[in-house]
Amino acid sequence: MGKNLTSRAEDYSKWYNELVVKSDLAENSGVRGCMVIKPYGYAIWEKMQGQLDKMFKETGHENAYFPLFIPKSYLSKEASHVEGFAKECAVVTHYRLKNAEDGSGIIVDEDAKLEEELIVRPTSETIIWDTFRKWVQSYRDLPLKINQWANVVRWEMRTRLFLRTAEFLWQEGHTAHTTKEEALEEAELMMNIYAEFAEDYMGVPVIKGTKTESERFAGAEETYCIEALMQDGKALQAGTSHFLGQNFAKAFDVKFASKEGKQEYVWATSWGVSTRLMGALVMTHSDDNGLVLPPKLAPIQVVIVPIYKGLDQLDIISEKVDPLVKELRGKGITVKYDTRDTHKPGFKFNEYELKGVPVRLAVGQRDLANGTFEVARRDTLTKEIVKAEDVVDKVVSLMDEIQENIFNKALDYRKNHITEVDSYDEFKKVIEEKGGFVSAHWDGTTETEDRIKEETKATIRCIPLNAKKEDGECIVTGKPSVQRVLFAKAY
Amino acid sequence: MGKNLTSRAEDYSKWYNELVVKSDLAENSGVRGCMVIKPYGYAIWEKMQGQLDKMFKETGHENAYFPLFIPKSYLSKEASHVEGFAKECAVVTHYRLKNAEDGSGIIVDEDAKLEEELIVRPTSETIIWDTFRKWVQSYRDLPLKINQWANVVRWEMRTRLFLRTAEFLWQEGHTAHTTKEEALEEAELMMNIYAEFAEDYMGVPVIKGTKTESERFAGAEETYCIEALMQDGKALQAGTSHFLGQNFAKAFDVKFASKEGKQEYVWATSWGVSTRLMGALVMTHSDDNGLVLPPKLAPIQVVIVPIYKGLDQLDIISEKVDPLVKELRGKGITVKYDTRDTHKPGFKFNEYELKGVPVRLAVGQRDLANGTFEVARRDTLTKEIVKAEDVVDKVVSLMDEIQENIFNKALDYRKNHITEVDSYDEFKKVIEEKGGFVSAHWDGTTETEDRIKEETKATIRCIPLNAKKEDGECIVTGKPSVQRVLFAKAY
Repeated sequence: MGKNLTSRAEDYSKWYNELVVKSDLAENSGVRGCMVIKPYGYAIWEKMQGQLDKMFKETGHENAYFPLFIPKSYLSKEASHVEGFAKECAVVTHYRLKNAEDGSGIIVDEDAKLEEELIVRPTSETIIWDTFRKWVQSYRDLPLKINQWANVVRWEMRTRLFLRTAEFLWQEGHTAHTTKEEALEEAELMMNIYAEFAEDYMGVPVIKGTKTESERFAGAEETYCIEALMQDGKALQAGTSHFLGQNFAKAFDVKFASKEGKQEYVWATSWGVSTRLMGALVMTHSDDNGLVLPPKLAPIQVVIVPIYKGLDQLDIISEKVDPLVKELRGKGITVKYDTRDTHKPGFKFNEYELKGVPVRLAVGQRDLANGTFEVARRDTLTKEIVKAEDVVDKVVSLMDEIQENIFNKALDYRKNHITEVDSYDEFKKVIEEKGGFVSAHWDGTTETEDRIKEETKATIRCIPLNAKKEDGECIVTGKPSVQRVLFAKAY
Repeated sequence: MGKNLTSRAEDYSKWYNELVVKSDLAENSGVRGCMVIKPYGYAIWEKMQGQLDKMFKETGHENAYFPLFIPKSYLSKEASHVEGFAKECAVVTHYRLKNAEDGSGIIVDEDAKLEEELIVRPTSETIIWDTFRKWVQSYRDLPLKINQWANVVRWEMRTRLFLRTAEFLWQEGHTAHTTKEEALEEAELMMNIYAEFAEDYMGVPVIKGTKTESERFAGAEETYCIEALMQDGKALQAGTSHFLGQNFAKAFDVKFASKEGKQEYVWATSWGVSTRLMGALVMTHSDDNGLVLPPKLAPIQVVIVPIYKGLDQLDIISEKVDPLVKELRGKGITVKYDTRDTHKPGFKFNEYELKGVPVRLAVGQRDLANGTFEVARRDTLTKEIVKAEDVVDKVVSLMDEIQENIFNKALDYRKNHITEVDSYDEFKKVIEEKGGFVSAHWDGTTETEDRIKEETKATIRCIPLNAKKEDGECIVTGKPSVQRVLFAKAY
């Protein structure tokens, strides 16, 4: 298996597209903008789901499932929401096909037109809040903390595997609370959970912040986000958590009787991460040889490749390897022992490198004689010879070391790609030449933000939380500012 | 919480509808035919998913994800397939909404009409086989054993929660093989896995068999099925596994190079179970007091209700209960200790009975004094007093006992509801008055099958596998038959 991968330096975008396909993560389908997530890619997504689902449940959320379709009238109930999603949605208008009378094939049956068109959900606030109205009567019914794992559709014109697809998989949390404070806390909590997941499991360092008004979710009063930085210096929004105020409660008339017996509108949040995280994972760690996966999300953590001539030699190797496999599995490590006779070791080495398997063990005649294994790390592409009796400990510790190393590497990259600037000229230069986050003062107006976006393609990725207050002047207008915000070109 | 549940004897259908809603499994949504699966219902579905997924993976299947949308032309490629699904499908025709110029609201943007209509998948054979063409070149790529967890849409006119909904959740397996024999083996294997799951986890006894030609899946050469019997004497198809021959391989041109270097079409299977299983679960075991859940699928296996006056008493009870909860959880048992002060014990007893929690422990002042717990079984509605030190063992053994008991009860019911008949008069009488499966000779023709269906509403549920060969005469035409088949009215 030749990798034939375009290098990052040559063409980062092409490198990404090729890598996703060649490493068997996903591919384009015959349906415009919709991808096929292949088994290897889906196995990573399942690991992400498993961990996130655990974190959601540990913080008191329950899963449920709501309809795929949203009546057109629902979408219209929250004004800014419909503005945000009407322009790119799949619309179901009929419920039957029939044979054309002229025998030309199968056509839409015009007699089966829906009275009201249905939108394939781009997000589920409207259908869920229509349901919450039935679930919430009293303060005793609150908080309501629901999550849904689902597919959603946004009719994007320019699509890229994982990063922007017409259909994608995601989870969407929707919660209802008695007070504004509690809803704000929930929105922040979920941002923190996303950040913890991104950093501790994906190994992707993120910056927490809030969005400016123009970048907020359609219908939100505050959007919290986590922003990651890719190796080409572009930012990627990896997760968002919205404080929705009482907007949806008012649009769908969801009130509760308070302890004092008053009818009040509930306070809401929603939050989500999607298969876009797969794109962030690939673009943060991978190199010109292929994927680099964090051990915590790798479908195969360790691969063992036997080097042999003839099945007799393989049998002897297997006598050493079989108990090792068992022992590693006993430690909770996912191991593949690749005994395929149809492919040469070199081919297998390439394949697992391309697929980002964190640790590769190889064992041949010399290792048998010496009682050793060759242990190779995917992240550093280094190899060492380890005594058989030390292999299990070595592998166990490598799981942590690799997880930590790839995070630190990404963190270093990011540290080197946050540039403070104090003039618009400098800003443009850094955005154009170096990329990464640019930390600058901004006057707080949408007008200035729009101008910068138009002139440089950079957007405000977030107003960082916990950033130091610092008086300054907007790089464009010179008006006063009390905190720097982070700009970047973004996916 | 008054249960106010219609009894099964009074109106079985009403009982079911009420129970599903009142026990918080699901409810109807504002979208015609689409349900909301509530957290309690979804928790059961997650347990089903978890176990099935494990069984699929243990037999070498991998999960993947394919597009929600199917281009109209794909559906048309397999002739009987399009016949089966065109009449009831949701059709996407546009990709944008806009504000009406007359200010009347939001309308479909006619400028955003799709060149080719997209069907929301009713099942994914076509889109998957279009993909398999790219994945299969050589016999080395086979077998290909893929599963997908997804939502599908079939535009049913009359819908019922879980049993028949426009959108439902399911898994669909799709496999490709080099030989007919291997594909047939796979189809049978998956039927067996479904049967094992239904019986050992859901506690629902099933009969394995094949479908007659007219009841087969649209595009299949053989459909294997598992058939269950509900408490009202109606059958329910709980899972199907199809041998698809080379139909889809030919429709989508999926060939492989054999070991001998010849180009051959691959052989296919597909198989699925859906949220319909939730309906089967409810209707098999539940009673006039509410759900009865098998311990293996119950979201809460044991509930502990404290009986107390004042928080001081509760504290003393909790000193006994807290370590018990911990010990039970240590045994892998899901326990809820319901200390809500807002509801009386009687209310809680009713609620957990309605929700089918297999075991309820209660502890009050007398129990404290005597060092005992009251242990109540949901399946038998019996109670006993158990010494505190024996409670853990008791609960552990009850998990198995209840699982076994509800299966046996359902099995007894089914045994008493399989009636052999040898005349059409007798057949009609049993179908009308007793219900259940009727085992009768049939001449093997679709004509006779259709006549029986028209005259009695009974259909052939399956041609049982492993049934004894027995010469006989068709109950309608008197023509020769070599095996009895099973008829029933069905969901």
